[in-house]
Amino acid sequence: MPVCPLEFRYGREEMKRIFDEEVRLQLMLDVEAAIARAHAKVGNIDKEHADIITQKANSQIVKLERVWEIEKDTNHDIMAMVKALTEQCGPAGDYVHLGATSNDIVDTVTALQFNKAIEMIIDDLMILEHTMIDLAEEHKHTVMVGRTHGQFAIPLTFGMKIAAYALETHRHLQRLEEARSRICVGKLSGAVGTGAALGEHAKDLQTITMEELGLGYEEASLQLVGRDRYVEFISILANISASLEKFSVEIRNLQRSEIGEVAEAFDKAKQVGSSTMAHKKNPIMCENITGLARVQRAFIIPTLENSPLWHERDLSNSSAERFTLGHSCVLVDDMLVKMNKVFANLAVFPEKMKKNIEMSKGLIMAEALMMALVKKGIGRQDAHEVTRRISMKCIDEGHDIRTGAMQDEIISDLWTPEELDVILDAANYTGRAAEIVDDVADIING
Amino acid sequence: MPVCPLEFRYGREEMKRIFDEEVRLQLMLDVEAAIARAHAKVGNIDKEHADIITQKANSQIVKLERVWEIEKDTNHDIMAMVKALTEQCGPAGDYVHLGATSNDIVDTVTALQFNKAIEMIIDDLMILEHTMIDLAEEHKHTVMVGRTHGQFAIPLTFGMKIAAYALETHRHLQRLEEARSRICVGKLSGAVGTGAALGEHAKDLQTITMEELGLGYEEASLQLVGRDRYVEFISILANISASLEKFSVEIRNLQRSEIGEVAEAFDKAKQVGSSTMAHKKNPIMCENITGLARVQRAFIIPTLENSPLWHERDLSNSSAERFTLGHSCVLVDDMLVKMNKVFANLAVFPEKMKKNIEMSKGLIMAEALMMALVKKGIGRQDAHEVTRRISMKCIDEGHDIRTGAMQDEIISDLWTPEELDVILDAANYTGRAAEIVDDVADIING
Amino acid sequence: MPVCPLEFRYGREEMKRIFDEEVRLQLMLDVEAAIARAHAKVGNIDKEHADIITQKANSQIVKLERVWEIEKDTNHDIMAMVKALTEQCGPAGDYVHLGATSNDIVDTVTALQFNKAIEMIIDDLMILEHTMIDLAEEHKHTVMVGRTHGQFAIPLTFGMKIAAYALETHRHLQRLEEARSRICVGKLSGAVGTGAALGEHAKDLQTITMEELGLGYEEASLQLVGRDRYVEFISILANISASLEKFSVEIRNLQRSEIGEVAEAFDKAKQVGSSTMAHKKNPIMCENITGLARVQRAFIIPTLENSPLWHERDLSNSSAERFTLGHSCVLVDDMLVKMNKVFANLAVFPEKMKKNIEMSKGLIMAEALMMALVKKGIGRQDAHEVTRRISMKCIDEGHDIRTGAMQDEIISDLWTPEELDVILDAANYTGRAAEIVDDVADIING
Amino acid sequence: MPVCPLEFRYGREEMKRIFDEEVRLQLMLDVEAAIARAHAKVGNIDKEHADIITQKANSQIVKLERVWEIEKDTNHDIMAMVKALTEQCGPAGDYVHLGATSNDIVDTVTALQFNKAIEMIIDDLMILEHTMIDLAEEHKHTVMVGRTHGQFAIPLTFGMKIAAYALETHRHLQRLEEARSRICVGKLSGAVGTGAALGEHAKDLQTITMEELGLGYEEASLQLVGRDRYVEFISILANISASLEKFSVEIRNLQRSEIGEVAEAFDKAKQVGSSTMAHKKNPIMCENITGLARVQRAFIIPTLENSPLWHERDLSNSSAERFTLGHSCVLVDDMLVKMNKVFANLAVFPEKMKKNIEMSKGLIMAEALMMALVKKGIGRQDAHEVTRRISMKCIDEGHDIRTGAMQDEIISDLWTPEELDVILDAANYTGRAAEIVDDVADIING
Repeated sequence: MPVCPLEFRYGREEMKRIFDEEVRLQLMLDVEAAIARAHAKVGNIDKEHADIITQKANSQIVKLERVWEIEKDTNHDIMAMVKALTEQCGPAGDYVHLGATSNDIVDTVTALQFNKAIEMIIDDLMILEHTMIDLAEEHKHTVMVGRTHGQFAIPLTFGMKIAAYALETHRHLQRLEEARSRICVGKLSGAVGTGAALGEHAKDLQTITMEELGLGYEEASLQLVGRDRYVEFISILANISASLEKFSVEIRNLQRSEIGEVAEAFDKAKQVGSSTMAHKKNPIMCENITGLARVQRAFIIPTLENSPLWHERDLSNSSAERFTLGHSCVLVDDMLVKMNKVFANLAVFPEKMKKNIEMSKGLIMAEALMMALVKKGIGRQDAHEVTRRISMKCIDEGHDIRTGAMQDEIISDLWTPEELDVILDAANYTGRAAEIVDDVADIING
Repeated sequence: MPVCPLEFRYGREEMKRIFDEEVRLQLMLDVEAAIARAHAKVGNIDKEHADIITQKANSQIVKLERVWEIEKDTNHDIMAMVKALTEQCGPAGDYVHLGATSNDIVDTVTALQFNKAIEMIIDDLMILEHTMIDLAEEHKHTVMVGRTHGQFAIPLTFGMKIAAYALETHRHLQRLEEARSRICVGKLSGAVGTGAALGEHAKDLQTITMEELGLGYEEASLQLVGRDRYVEFISILANISASLEKFSVEIRNLQRSEIGEVAEAFDKAKQVGSSTMAHKKNPIMCENITGLARVQRAFIIPTLENSPLWHERDLSNSSAERFTLGHSCVLVDDMLVKMNKVFANLAVFPEKMKKNIEMSKGLIMAEALMMALVKKGIGRQDAHEVTRRISMKCIDEGHDIRTGAMQDEIISDLWTPEELDVILDAANYTGRAAEIVDDVADIING
Repeated sequence: MPVCPLEFRYGREEMKRIFDEEVRLQLMLDVEAAIARAHAKVGNIDKEHADIITQKANSQIVKLERVWEIEKDTNHDIMAMVKALTEQCGPAGDYVHLGATSNDIVDTVTALQFNKAIEMIIDDLMILEHTMIDLAEEHKHTVMVGRTHGQFAIPLTFGMKIAAYALETHRHLQRLEEARSRICVGKLSGAVGTGAALGEHAKDLQTITMEELGLGYEEASLQLVGRDRYVEFISILANISASLEKFSVEIRNLQRSEIGEVAEAFDKAKQVGSSTMAHKKNPIMCENITGLARVQRAFIIPTLENSPLWHERDLSNSSAERFTLGHSCVLVDDMLVKMNKVFANLAVFPEKMKKNIEMSKGLIMAEALMMALVKKGIGRQDAHEVTRRISMKCIDEGHDIRTGAMQDEIISDLWTPEELDVILDAANYTGRAAEIVDDVADIING
Repeated sequence: MPVCPLEFRYGREEMKRIFDEEVRLQLMLDVEAAIARAHAKVGNIDKEHADIITQKANSQIVKLERVWEIEKDTNHDIMAMVKALTEQCGPAGDYVHLGATSNDIVDTVTALQFNKAIEMIIDDLMILEHTMIDLAEEHKHTVMVGRTHGQFAIPLTFGMKIAAYALETHRHLQRLEEARSRICVGKLSGAVGTGAALGEHAKDLQTITMEELGLGYEEASLQLVGRDRYVEFISILANISASLEKFSVEIRNLQRSEIGEVAEAFDKAKQVGSSTMAHKKNPIMCENITGLARVQRAFIIPTLENSPLWHERDLSNSSAERFTLGHSCVLVDDMLVKMNKVFANLAVFPEKMKKNIEMSKGLIMAEALMMALVKKGIGRQDAHEVTRRISMKCIDEGHDIRTGAMQDEIISDLWTPEELDVILDAANYTGRAAEIVDDVADIING
């Protein structure tokens, strides 16, 4: 197999392992063993047989190579595994896969994979939200200009911005935790969901098997676990991806040459920023996340298209799911880990933030001025008009709002230059910013 | 404005109303009134002023035409509304929109629209799940062939199939109810979320306003309510759409000429099925749903793309959301209502279901035969092999499995023809089908 | 019908007209008339009958209201039109819709709509590419900093940037012109494409009809014109949308407060930029385009999903196409017109471009320095290393590259300060920028 | 690296090779060599130096391991390759990568990969269209029922259906051939497209280099080749995928148990159709294609999202393109090869097709009857009504149309039973079906 750039340039081994063939084989064997033990429990088979199956259901014993060998003949991966397990079990082999259909194994294994993947992603989200809220606390008073439409608006603090991101991350955590029991659901109910081949204890067999595997079960399936569950999972992952793109785009924007308020950590000694431009610091981790987010988000489309299968199932979901489910988990984990590195090592430049505020020549304080006018009893529409007039004049004549405002009779009648300075100091116009950081910290920490 | 086929051929007026300009104006006025009353409550303005604003905040008084007139000049819809309200309020006009930014109104109005839309969709889902479970109960013993890969598999009952759909519908209901408080969230926190223009009572002003409007509030927003909330909503709607496509595809498949097990209700006297083919009954409602589901599902893509806005906000989400949010609600409501009509009026043909079972020449009972062999103590792999051999022979020689099986020594040694008939009766091999219907009915009915 | 914000806030009436019910009715009548004349031409019916049908096939005579009235009864829009036309034609009515199936009319009408829409979009593209190339010529020597990863890179000219966009626009024109004959294809071949109901002249009937309507024809259709044609069309529109988002994002970025190199035209006297921030100039047209582009692009998904219909056709494409096809054309036309307005009225600030170059302290000239070193015979890797060293030092010590370079022995040995100034002048390092503008102008103008 | 199911279960090695790291390295070296030779040609460097670079630009000499080693330090893959090549070239090393930017290499290599991939896909399409047209010719007279809305419509021939698919495939071939020169375009124009670092011969250098590599060149790029080109490519691939899903869905539908008109080839002796249902023949290749088509089509979304990059480029496209471009080519090639296997080995059952026609009790001949009535001078609307009446009566009373028609006075007045039999014979009502097959064969073969 050629070394494939499609695969090897991203993703953590831990997550990839969950979806590799060997782990998948072990999970299949785990399911078969759990089924056998459930049969023993309800009295369908002897406990000894279940014990032997459980003991042999080990990918050290039932080897991947053997499974593949059989699969070459039969062209059916699950039956190959069943046969490979059966041949290890002696007389107990007769009780392997009893009453089950292939897809009972496939979907239950997927649920086990989801369960492991969700555990990792929940950890990732927790680590990220804590990194973020720590950064937010550190900078809860670090004043910077807020921007809307890419234009200077009014001040906020850098900590508050990051707190808003931390809370968004926290919501994803909530979503995933809430949905987890709906997502991690296996089934043992046969080819069309009636459990006819499972006999009189069909219901208990499913309940016992899934309990033992730590999964929920499908109360009313046809051949498949409801794909609305997969849609829910991949939708949450896509939502996370979109947030990660958002955070990354923000870092990339704040790191622009003209803005320079933050920077991804960068090892000056070694890293070559560009082959022809020697001086650049590029936000490459955030650019990388931005691109991967687009890929992962797109997987929601085939996941939705896999929902309308025919009758009790068709197989068209299979080739697509092999591709989209594992990749989605690997990509989201990869992005979350990278995003955490970015925030954990982010260089923040409060001095540059101040300079950028000054660059606005106080125009970002127009609202503060307007609010001060309102406080003095001037109608809101009038205050708006006064402020707009002053702002436009400042822009036209190129001087700062302090100068412009003092030239205005209404203003100079109301305030001394010193009083105006207080009104026009950005640090005095960040409202609840610091308080919001604390509120979010409380939510996240407790 | 020309009569536009893009719009008028689908959707219920009730849902369209929620997103039309007039209702939207009233909702904006409601938000302004709630803000004014909140200001009065915390002591920022006089109660009388708030009362006047509340009284004038009525689209019978602040007319859409006047708002549009002002908008033509100012090119800003919210400021136009604010001005139109202000000019109705006399001196109280000074206290309109106090400390708010345009988008405080926009996003809070959207939350109100979502709230109304979700209420309708929850009703639709409840009606649908009850229609379905009633149909399921009616047919819980109606045997039909299960199909996988489009091929005959083993029997189930029609009621059980519909029960599985009802439960899938029920899960969507759960999702929407769970997510509702995360989705219906307004904000009152100014241009970048600090609430600086709202003064010392900023936090309370937001809490009070949103409580009065029956909404949650954004604990840490920048200019916008977090778009992860919109992604969550549209994802759930897309998930519903995918399920509706699934149910519709199933009806369309079961209504095929060769299958004929169900049919959409059809008024023979009047409806012209096709311009050249006079004899056809077409599942046009289900085809209609199938197509609309594709459209609605696609809106998840721009919704995800709207998440990564710049800094405290950019406006690129605005034109897209005007399009995708309303249309998504109108489409999903429309499809749910149609889907309910389909199931409420579905013609079911149990006799045809039986005939189709017979068409399989008993081959769908191969598994039942295999299970019976296993019960008699034959190893599962061997039983599988015997059954496969018999089945293949039947297919090759064109006779039914009963005949084929009796020609097999293993079988004829074990059973008399009469015993075999019982084994091969589909009605005896539906496992937990009826029980599952009752289980689902219990879940849905409470 | 309520005034629906989903519709009325965008789109030109001319394009909307193409897809409205009345124009669509006239196009259907045109197709019926063309079919009748073709029948006369091959001798199937009398010329007088064809003449009467042609004369009555007029939406002033066959009124929309009457068609809708019939449709209410028959629930079939095409048969309603056929009946409404027939009742106007007297005895000639017998020869209306002869041998045709409903979808012969539907798909042919769609081809006519596409043809008109493509004509408008081609015009839009031509106008846009000319506006762009004019702007490019005007600014072919206007030096600005190039940016990669959002970081200062090396200089280019503003004109060259716009020329690259003009050429991208030109490629879309080429694509649309090339694909037009594959897209604008009607059919007259009956319910499954055999033309059986059309009799012995079936082939000629299709050829003649489509020729008269100015369309191509489907050599081998089933009931439908191949939906790969629609995918091709909507793909090209999505590609255009993506380019328009790109151009818009560029304007929005260049208009940022910190950059300020261009601005959308803005009527200071009237427009209210923001309800609370009086001083802002927002790139709202470009933001609007950005959002609409996301919506239109998403329509490629249902268009692709409409391709795999069942057998000779199913109807699931119909509800989706009513939505996606018209909206795509209306949206793309709308965006192109807006984009043209943006470029035609764009304020460009060459002085600010110069200032931004200076802001880089000459670091954007590092490559120029490196190339000068290479010209002096220094190996490329060494030159890269020298330049990187100087650049890093300048960044650390905060002085400009001129100072940093003159402190370096290698540099000061090679050049006098005056020679270095020439090397470090951005205007001397724009390579082929102006020439490229001329090349593109040649391509576009002829 | 774990054996990853995400990768190894699909795709041909030949296509995967194009996108693997080793081949990619060789292609990068090829580009560097071509650049060096171009420099020699225009007189920038000595021919001997170019010869040495050309000779060393070989992945047997510049080893992947060495490149990776350097990349670990520099974190920049292209500069690592440049360095690894340089260190092999001795003094000529000074002239490696002269005036180029990393992305000149990256995008040109991608163009070379596209060129190879397109060659393979064009071959695949040609093979497929010929397989299809051969099958179509074989069955040009094989009558089957046409189906619309999943309902019996009127007859066509199996060959004609396949001919329509062959022609659709042929259109994709045309599209790819037309677009190829727009897609396979490299660039050599430096960091922002001005070619400043390339000196006075910049234009010629690009032209010569690209000519030698067999590529077009970008007349006006910024740092990147226009991504509208990639959108065009992936759109065409998505269009192909949608067609392949369509063909696959058709096979799957025709292979249904109730229809049974075709079947994917199937090795009865070995393949295990289902773990519990021994008798089934499943269209698993077509199901596989259906699923993979959904995955590939989704890649159009990130491809469109990669178009709006910032300024002269940002890097967000990079991680996404590594994923989507290679996978798209591998998937489409894989599906085309499988699709060809399906059609080359398809089992067709004309007898079953006849039986299905009979199943309709002649109702599919209603149109033929109507046309015959029209030929006899009965008005089309009346003929439609008569036929509809007879059809409905037949459906209600369960007899065939022949019986029903002969009971109708209008019919029995016009024809004898024998004459009616001729009218009602499906084989006499396939119109131009066979002729269409020949027409398509002419188009494809010549």
